[in-house]
Amino acid sequence: MTTNPFAPRPEPPYYAVIFASQRTPAEAGYGETADRMVELAAQQQGFLGVESTRGADGFGITVSYWASLEAIAAWRAHAEHVIARETGRKQWYTGYELRIAKVERAYGWRAQEP
Amino acid sequence: MTTNPFAPRPEPPYYAVIFASQRTPAEAGYGETADRMVELAAQQQGFLGVESTRGADGFGITVSYWASLEAIAAWRAHAEHVIARETGRKQWYTGYELRIAKVERAYGWRAQEP
Repeated sequence: MTTNPFAPRPEPPYYAVIFASQRTPAEAGYGETADRMVELAAQQQGFLGVESTRGADGFGITVSYWASLEAIAAWRAHAEHVIARETGRKQWYTGYELRIAKVERAYGWRAQEP
Repeated sequence: MTTNPFAPRPEPPYYAVIFASQRTPAEAGYGETADRMVELAAQQQGFLGVESTRGADGFGITVSYWASLEAIAAWRAHAEHVIARETGRKQWYTGYELRIAKVERAYGWRAQEP
């Protein structure tokens, strides 16, 4: 592990966007666009962090965290994000589920360093 | 894909438990226990579904969905779950983050069958 995959732990309440998706085998720019979306999301007002992973079967979950519903709506309407979403539907995903949820409680745990 | 990895889409509001974890390389019964926890969770009152994935780097996200905070609390206190959590801290995880969130909005999309 060279990077920390966990999002920060701000004081609730804040919002989570839970995006579960099934990838097609088509690569066609997916990796670059996914990286760009994370980079761009991190620049948006109200962005708090993101956690993301995908298994060998192509099923992935990305959870992004936001300060408000307004911040989520603004990110949803961002022009580059709109284009990426359209391309995703055409090429990269066979399906997805998206849920917006208000985080009410949060805690974490880390092993002691050996 | 032989199984549907997506959780059902009940009418909000309901609750999500977002569990992000980093695995150690230690196997030692992890797979069996993880399968058993999903099986057992699915038998609990108020369980609505689960989505779960883990990447090759050992970082995983599991989101389970529940009808109420009471159902989440009961599952948290389930004896087998308590033991699995303790073993997880001792052997399987280097760290985790857990967030409890109220789902306010949800939608999904599927590609047309070719």
